[in-house]
Amino acid sequence: MLTYYIVADVGGTHIRAACFPTDSQVPTTVKRISTKGKDPAHERLINLLDSIIPIDGKVAAITVAAPGPLDPYEGILFEAPNIPGWTNLPLKELVQEKFNVPVAIGNDANLAALGEWRFGAGIGHRHLVYITVSTGIGAGVIIDNQLLLGVHGLAAELGHITVLPDGPLCGCGKRGHLEAVTSGPAIARWVEQELRQGIPSSLSISMNKPLTAKDVSQAASQGDKLAKDALARAGTYLGITIADILHVFNPSLVIIGGGVSRSGDAFLVPMREAISEHVISKKYIEGFTLTTCNLGDEVGLMGALALAHTLDAPAPCQ
Amino acid sequence: MLTYYIVADVGGTHIRAACFPTDSQVPTTVKRISTKGKDPAHERLINLLDSIIPIDGKVAAITVAAPGPLDPYEGILFEAPNIPGWTNLPLKELVQEKFNVPVAIGNDANLAALGEWRFGAGIGHRHLVYITVSTGIGAGVIIDNQLLLGVHGLAAELGHITVLPDGPLCGCGKRGHLEAVTSGPAIARWVEQELRQGIPSSLSISMNKPLTAKDVSQAASQGDKLAKDALARAGTYLGITIADILHVFNPSLVIIGGGVSRSGDAFLVPMREAISEHVISKKYIEGFTLTTCNLGDEVGLMGALALAHTLDAPAPCQ
Repeated sequence: MLTYYIVADVGGTHIRAACFPTDSQVPTTVKRISTKGKDPAHERLINLLDSIIPIDGKVAAITVAAPGPLDPYEGILFEAPNIPGWTNLPLKELVQEKFNVPVAIGNDANLAALGEWRFGAGIGHRHLVYITVSTGIGAGVIIDNQLLLGVHGLAAELGHITVLPDGPLCGCGKRGHLEAVTSGPAIARWVEQELRQGIPSSLSISMNKPLTAKDVSQAASQGDKLAKDALARAGTYLGITIADILHVFNPSLVIIGGGVSRSGDAFLVPMREAISEHVISKKYIEGFTLTTCNLGDEVGLMGALALAHTLDAPAPCQ
Repeated sequence: MLTYYIVADVGGTHIRAACFPTDSQVPTTVKRISTKGKDPAHERLINLLDSIIPIDGKVAAITVAAPGPLDPYEGILFEAPNIPGWTNLPLKELVQEKFNVPVAIGNDANLAALGEWRFGAGIGHRHLVYITVSTGIGAGVIIDNQLLLGVHGLAAELGHITVLPDGPLCGCGKRGHLEAVTSGPAIARWVEQELRQGIPSSLSISMNKPLTAKDVSQAASQGDKLAKDALARAGTYLGITIADILHVFNPSLVIIGGGVSRSGDAFLVPMREAISEHVISKKYIEGFTLTTCNLGDEVGLMGALALAHTLDAPAPCQ
């Protein structure tokens, strides 16, 4: 009988699910629904999973990539931003009760790292760090071919490294974190603040529609100095943090993903300069590669698939 | 026949070596010599090792804890501060050629983490971080019962995390690292700078003898406000970095060692306050312990002994 992995990727807007034969990286089915609806999101997720289980086969495992802090050992979501009701949700248990097969859940950025390591830009690297810069900053770390989880599974929160003590307020309520300086909203808020100081720019503050990092990126590509300064500032702090990360993990690869990383040279050149400037020894950048992510929008599903593979053949130390 | 581990701990002033039966943590012999002398330090080390090998037994392994950046896979010391001639020194090869037994070397702070995990304050913890604060700041990290090394063995340089961009110059030549703010010399330099600004204190700048962190610590214990402010400042930045470390590694234990950590509450209370203030979720401090090191001056030898144990019975993932 054919065996399959059923995987899902839960986002604030959509839930996607896919069915993969256990020996393939090509799905037989992919489906997408809205995360929000009349019934609770976890019921919508379970119905979606149910709808893609093939009738001709056996399910080897179900895995789910979910946003927010979670306990991957117990399979509990502590808090999923933008998904009402997902607070201390025992998702693993709920899915396991319904389908009676091995189930695992993982933080989406952690699983993106696992997906890139197994199927994407990170193939062949034993030590890598993945950082995604968009509305927030998520990360995942592979050490010696293992996903870094920590004692409760809350490790690799690289967006909450303090880069500017007493700096801007972060979404988490603390000050000066990388996410409060380099995320998309942080870039837009910094530009608004400069505009209020009277700094000239093609951008302006509108009462109807707050500025976005995309607006800033477009203005920068048309040569606007304030927009370029904003991306350079964000890129520089990301570069300083990547230098810290090289000193902490000594990886052979750092993978950058997320919308902000697509802002081009105005962001990436200052980031690369800051890495070179702040690294304490050339040995950290010998044989080191900095690259962009490879799996694009598929990274969530492919990360969940990589997790399913580790379930099926657990690594000896886990 | 009895079998033994021969271990050594190389410092800037002394080299110590010890002989342990493979089934014991109590050495049969411990010897100490000066690091500096007429002959090169590695010859002094090899002669010392030779002098403690017992005549009645077999040597199972020789391990050496050494200062400075090194490649633990190849056994090469890149640069040992304060030891002339120890630049790109293939120490593992030299020792192996002489004694023809398994040899391993490790960075002293890395091995201190391994020693505390195996024999000291870290027993039973799968995920721990060790930080030593003295003339410099060294660290070692245990993840899932494995020492974090990275691709070239240069990981866990937590002293070179940037805590104050554009802050004081670090020994490595870069600015604003934790070591440039919280190490003993950094504390003393900050006090001197404040004294030059006319801040009142029982301490004063002498032309003959630069201030030390010990002077500052003593003045603080006698109630001197500037000295207390200096230790509070250093403790606060260490606390912010420990909060970062909790977000990065989610360990169940952080062990603090080194002379500065013995400055008492003037240092430790602000450090603990900064951790509580900067951690993004209480989940990071649930079941978390912050403690001081347990092995004292023996940590180097016990770390080298722990390394010898991993050689003899390698962990399945290494």
